[in-house]
Amino acid sequence: MAKKKKTETAESDNRTETTEKKTRKKTAQESVKRTRAASVTGKAKEKGKEKDKKTRLRIIPLGGLGEVGKNMTVFEFGDDLVIIDCGLAFPDEEMFGVDRVIPDFAYLESVKDKIRGLLLTHGHEDHIGAVPYFLERFPVPVYGTALTLGIIRNKLREHKLAYTPSLVTVNAGDKVKLGVFEAEFIHVNHSIADACAIALQTPVGTVVHSGDFKLDVSPIDEDVIDLTRFGEIGRRGVRALLCESTNAERSGFTPSEKSVGGVLESIFESNPDKRIVVATFSSNVHRVKQVIDISVKLGRKVAVTGRSMLTVLDAATELGYMKIPPETVIDVSEMKYYSPGKLTLITTGSQGEPMSALYRMAFSERTSVTLGRDDVVVLSSSTIPGNEKLIGRIINELTHNGIKVINGSILTGVHTSGHACAEEIKLLIQLCRPQVYIPVHGEYRHLEANRGIASFLGIPSDRIVMSDIGEVIELGKKDVSVAGSVPSGRTLIDGFGVGDVGKDVLRDRKHLSEDGIVIVYATVDYDLATVVIPPVIEAKGFVYAPDSEDLLREAGLAASDEITAAFDRRRGKTDPETLKERVRRAVLKFLSGRTGRNPMVVPLINEL
Amino acid sequence: MAKKKKTETAESDNRTETTEKKTRKKTAQESVKRTRAASVTGKAKEKGKEKDKKTRLRIIPLGGLGEVGKNMTVFEFGDDLVIIDCGLAFPDEEMFGVDRVIPDFAYLESVKDKIRGLLLTHGHEDHIGAVPYFLERFPVPVYGTALTLGIIRNKLREHKLAYTPSLVTVNAGDKVKLGVFEAEFIHVNHSIADACAIALQTPVGTVVHSGDFKLDVSPIDEDVIDLTRFGEIGRRGVRALLCESTNAERSGFTPSEKSVGGVLESIFESNPDKRIVVATFSSNVHRVKQVIDISVKLGRKVAVTGRSMLTVLDAATELGYMKIPPETVIDVSEMKYYSPGKLTLITTGSQGEPMSALYRMAFSERTSVTLGRDDVVVLSSSTIPGNEKLIGRIINELTHNGIKVINGSILTGVHTSGHACAEEIKLLIQLCRPQVYIPVHGEYRHLEANRGIASFLGIPSDRIVMSDIGEVIELGKKDVSVAGSVPSGRTLIDGFGVGDVGKDVLRDRKHLSEDGIVIVYATVDYDLATVVIPPVIEAKGFVYAPDSEDLLREAGLAASDEITAAFDRRRGKTDPETLKERVRRAVLKFLSGRTGRNPMVVPLINEL
Repeated sequence: MAKKKKTETAESDNRTETTEKKTRKKTAQESVKRTRAASVTGKAKEKGKEKDKKTRLRIIPLGGLGEVGKNMTVFEFGDDLVIIDCGLAFPDEEMFGVDRVIPDFAYLESVKDKIRGLLLTHGHEDHIGAVPYFLERFPVPVYGTALTLGIIRNKLREHKLAYTPSLVTVNAGDKVKLGVFEAEFIHVNHSIADACAIALQTPVGTVVHSGDFKLDVSPIDEDVIDLTRFGEIGRRGVRALLCESTNAERSGFTPSEKSVGGVLESIFESNPDKRIVVATFSSNVHRVKQVIDISVKLGRKVAVTGRSMLTVLDAATELGYMKIPPETVIDVSEMKYYSPGKLTLITTGSQGEPMSALYRMAFSERTSVTLGRDDVVVLSSSTIPGNEKLIGRIINELTHNGIKVINGSILTGVHTSGHACAEEIKLLIQLCRPQVYIPVHGEYRHLEANRGIASFLGIPSDRIVMSDIGEVIELGKKDVSVAGSVPSGRTLIDGFGVGDVGKDVLRDRKHLSEDGIVIVYATVDYDLATVVIPPVIEAKGFVYAPDSEDLLREAGLAASDEITAAFDRRRGKTDPETLKERVRRAVLKFLSGRTGRNPMVVPLINEL
Repeated sequence: MAKKKKTETAESDNRTETTEKKTRKKTAQESVKRTRAASVTGKAKEKGKEKDKKTRLRIIPLGGLGEVGKNMTVFEFGDDLVIIDCGLAFPDEEMFGVDRVIPDFAYLESVKDKIRGLLLTHGHEDHIGAVPYFLERFPVPVYGTALTLGIIRNKLREHKLAYTPSLVTVNAGDKVKLGVFEAEFIHVNHSIADACAIALQTPVGTVVHSGDFKLDVSPIDEDVIDLTRFGEIGRRGVRALLCESTNAERSGFTPSEKSVGGVLESIFESNPDKRIVVATFSSNVHRVKQVIDISVKLGRKVAVTGRSMLTVLDAATELGYMKIPPETVIDVSEMKYYSPGKLTLITTGSQGEPMSALYRMAFSERTSVTLGRDDVVVLSSSTIPGNEKLIGRIINELTHNGIKVINGSILTGVHTSGHACAEEIKLLIQLCRPQVYIPVHGEYRHLEANRGIASFLGIPSDRIVMSDIGEVIELGKKDVSVAGSVPSGRTLIDGFGVGDVGKDVLRDRKHLSEDGIVIVYATVDYDLATVVIPPVIEAKGFVYAPDSEDLLREAGLAASDEITAAFDRRRGKTDPETLKERVRRAVLKFLSGRTGRNPMVVPLINEL
C-alpha cells in the first residue's frame, strides 16, 4: 500500500466561483501534482502534530477502497470508536476454494474496549456480510433500519453466537449517541429498501458518510432521498464528506426505479400468452414489488423460486415493506393449474450462479420447473464484472432451447443501478458543501473519477483525500492529513475456517489446479541403505491414469534410480530431507521432460 | 448435442417482397415452430434419401457453432473433402491447467484419404491456431493469403513437423481446384489484413463461406470488401451461404477502422507532452499502422514492446503490409534519449493478460519500461468476454499510480470491431441471395440473432439451417437436411499432451483447487493384521500446515483407529481396497466435520 501524507493547507471554506470551476476542470492533472507536492511538505507538519492526536478524529477505512466489497470505516476520537458498515467481498478467481472475504479485524482487536457501536447503512452483503464474524469477536450494539437488521437476524440464525447480540432498530431521522459521537440516519434511495446515509457529529465537526445512494425522483413505496436534511446539515457546516464512487465514471443521472416498471410492463403486455420469468437480485425488494404489481394488474399469478428470494420476500412482507394482495402468490407446484399467460415466475440467478434457481431451470438440473417455448426470461439486473461468462452460458442454453431471453444487451431499461452517477454525486456535494472530500467505495478507477468530480466543483485538491484501506486519515478542526497506517487487508473464509487459508495454501491450490499432483511413496532403510518397498507413483489431476501406466511406471523407476544413486554416493548415509528433495527433483524433471507439465511432486519416504 | 433433422421443402428462390418481410419479423417466433414441425416430417424423407448420399454435399461444422473459437468446417462430396479454417479456442475458467482447445479430429481420421486441402480465410488464432496439430496428422496442402501463411510459418517454427508442409499462397480473386471442388478467395475487410471469404463451387451449386468480415468503406491500406464479386456470384446463384454471427446482436454498421484513427489522433494532439502508450491486438496490423502514421505526422518516435507485437510487425513489414518511414521505429532502450511528448509506445496486453508487456509495465515486474505520470495509456481494443476483471486490474493499478487511462468505458471510438453488425449481414445476404442460409461462428445467442436477420429478409425458416458442431448438413440440388452426426467436440492441449486431459483429470484438478489434498500413508501387515508404520498425514492446499499440526495429528489417529477397527472385525483378513476406502472415508469425515471443507483424501497403504 502506498504511504501517503496529505495536509490541508487552506482552512476557510473558500468555495470557488463557477468560472474558476471550469479552469479547474482543465487542470485536473496539474491538481494531482499539487497534491503530491503538498504531501511532501505535509510530512514535517504532521510530526509536530503527534502530540495533539487526541484532539483529532481518526478516520480509518478497513475495506471498500481500491476494491469492490467489504466496506467498513472506523471513526476514532480519544477513547471512543464507532464503525460504519461491516461488509464482505466475494473471492476473486485466484482465491481457489475461498467462500468469502472479510476485512482484517486486527486493528479493532487492539482498540477493542473503545468500540461503542456498529452503524449500518443498508442490508447489502458488501455492507453487512461480515457482521456475524464481527459480532463473534466484538459484542457491541448494532444500529440499523428494520430491513437491514431483519436480514442480519436471518444470517445469525445460521451463524450461532455464544450470546444474544444487541440489535437496535432505528428509523431514518433518528439520532444515536455513542460516546463523543452522535450518529444521525438520513434516508437515501438505493436498490434495497430502508437505506441510509449517516451524519456523524464529532468533536471536529460533522462528518457525512453517503453509504450507497442515488437520487430517485419517483421511487417505489418510499420517499425521495432526504435532500432537505442533507441541505440543512450542509448549511450548518460539514467538516468532511465520504462519498461512494461506484458509478462515478458514468455521466448524468441514474434512471428511476419506476422507469424499469414501465419497460417491464410493456414486456408483459407484448407477451400475453407467455409465462414471464423475471430474474433479479433478491434484495431488490422494490423490483420484486413492481413485478408483482404488474402481474396483479394483468391478472397473472406469481410464483417465487430461489432460496434467498423466498427469504427476502418473507422478511419484506413481515416487516411491512411489501403489501401483496391476497391470492396473488402461488406455490411453484400450483403453476400447472394455470396457462402460461396467467403466470409470472420470480427467481434468483440473474448473475448466472451455477447453484441458483435460474441456472438449474435453464439446464434442467434438480428443479421442478421446466422452461420451454412458452416462457420469456427477463434478466432484470446488471452484470457484476466477472460474471459475464456465467450469464452468457445461461442465455446461450435458453436460446438454444428456443426460449426468448431479454437482457440489457438487447433491450435497455429492464434494470437500473442503485448507485449515484456523476450528476448525483455533484448534487450531494453541493448540498453538503464539505470542507474535506473523501471518495470511498470503489476500485481506484472509480475513486479517481470521483476525485475528478469534486475537483470540477472547485474543491481544492489539497482537501480531497485519496486514501486506501488501512490508512489513517487524521481530521482536525482546521487540517487534515494521512498519518501512517494500521493493519488491514483481507481475511479469507473457507468452510468453518476464518483466516487459516493464506498465501501459501492458495499458491498450493493454484499449483494443484494447473497440473495436479504426483505422489511418490517408498519405504527405505537408511541404516542398511536399501530400498525396502520400491517407489510407487500415485497421480491425481495430472494425466488420465489408465492411459498413462507406462509413464507413471517409468517415473517410479526414475525415483528408484535416484534413491540408489543417493545411497551410493553417501555410502549409506543420506539424510531423509535431502533424499526427499532429490527424489522430488528427479521425478519432476522426468515428468516435465515427457509431458511439458509441472505437477506438484510430493515424495513420501518412510523409514523402516 | 441436439439431434435435429431439417428438410428444405420449397426449392425455388421465391424471395419475398418487402411487405412480407415485415410480417416475417413479427412472426419470428412462429417461424421457429414451423422449422421444428418441418424437422419431424423431414425424418422420413431423409431416410429415403440415404441411397443418393453420393449426390449430396455434406457440410459438417467441427467447431465454431454454439461457441466462440475453433472454427472449422468440412465440405465433403463423394470421395473429395475440403476444410475451411482450423482454429483453436482458449480454455474456459473450468479447464484448469489447459493451454488451448482444438477441434476433435476423430471424424477426419476416418476419412483421411479424401482430404484434398485446407483453406484458410485469415490469420486469427480462432481460424488457424490448430493448423500445426492438424498438419501433424494430415499432411495435406494449405491455402491462404501471404499474411495468413506468414503467421503459420512462425507457428511451425516452434512446432516442428516431421515433414515440410505444402503452404500455397493465394491472392484474393484466385481460384484453387481441389477434387470436385473449386475454391475462390474473395477479399473482405476484417481486423487483420489479407482476410478472405471463400466461394466453393460444388456439384450441388456454389456455397459461400463468409469467414470473418465487415464492410469498411474507408479501410487502411487495402480495398473495400469485394462487394462486386459477391454480387456476381449471387447473380449466378448461391446454393448456400454460411455467414458469421459474432456481432449479429448489434444493430447498424460497424464503424470504419479509419474513424478510430481520427479519435486516436485527437488523443495524441491533446497530450503533446505525454508519452502515448497504445495497447492493441498484435494482429491488428492496420491499427498499428495508424498509430505509427499519427506518430510520424506529429514527430514522435515509435517503440514497440511485447513478443507477439514484434513478431507480427516483422512479418507485416517483410511481406509489405506496412511501410514505415526510416528512423521512425526505435528500440525500447533508446526511449531515454527522447522527451515523453516525442514518444509513442505500442504494446500487447490489451486483454490484461498477466504475462503481457502492458501488465508487466503496470505492475513494474520484469520490465525495462517504467510507466508514470508522463504517460497516457490507451487501450485500443475491445474486451473479450471473460477478461473484464483482468483488464480492470490493470486500469486500477495504472490509475492508482496516477497514470491516465483511456479505454472504451470513458471515451468511445478508440476501437472498432472487425465483425459485421446486423446491417452488414443483411448486405451480404442481399448480394449473395442464397437459397439456403446457415448461421455460423458464434454462441447460440449469436446464431439465433443471425437467424432472425435472415428471417427478416424473407428467407423461409425451412431454408435457414440452425446447426451445431458435429451435425451433418446434407445439401442436395433441391433440398437440405440435417442427417445424423459425426464425432465432434474439444481436444484439450496441456503441455505436450494432446487429448490426454479429459473430464476425469479436470474434475480432479477442480477438486484439488477447491480444498486441496490430504494424503494418508501407512504401512501394514495384512497377514499379521498389524500396523507396521502408523498413519501419517501430508496435506497440500488444505490448511496452513504449521498452524494445524494438532488437526493433522488427530486425522492420523482417526486413520489409525479405522485400520485397527478393520483388522478387528475381519479378524486379520481385510482386503487392501476395502481398507483404503474405509481409511479415506474416516479421514474425510473427521476433517470435514472439523473444518467444513471437503479435501481430496488419498490413502496410500503399503503392505510389508
